[in-house]
Amino acid sequence: MKARVYVSLKPTVLDPQGQTIRSALAGLGHQSITDVRQGKFFDIQFAPGTARAQAEPELQQIARDVLANPVIEDYRVEFLD
Amino acid sequence: MKARVYVSLKPTVLDPQGQTIRSALAGLGHQSITDVRQGKFFDIQFAPGTARAQAEPELQQIARDVLANPVIEDYRVEFLD
Repeated sequence: MKARVYVSLKPTVLDPQGQTIRSALAGLGHQSITDVRQGKFFDIQFAPGTARAQAEPELQQIARDVLANPVIEDYRVEFLD
Repeated sequence: MKARVYVSLKPTVLDPQGQTIRSALAGLGHQSITDVRQGKFFDIQFAPGTARAQAEPELQQIARDVLANPVIEDYRVEFLD
């Protein structure tokens, strides 16, 4: 079983890295791009035979406690199969 | 118009950051997780009125030349609306 956890900064939190990319793109002539925000994702592989009913709450806990900082980041869990 | 570019290491490239997360999760008791790989994504906002036909090749070029390193990374472009 495979799952993916998306972690991104909350919309109210400034994203200096994204702003730097936006400026760089504007400098390269890509004037039509008005905003860039960066996020990360984690592809997580479970051992064969892991039950979805067990994996789902475990992954929610991992996303909240390990992968994301809930003070400034949002996360989303998605099962790929 | 919004688009998202996903960038991940090619499957043949080692991902030490993902391995570190996997070890940390095993240490926390999450033994059912056998592999973790990390990637990043970029949410890109185009100016209103940008034509999809113009934005698509522009974004492919940005992904290839700026956001990803095609030697070691794969990328995927997705339009969100």
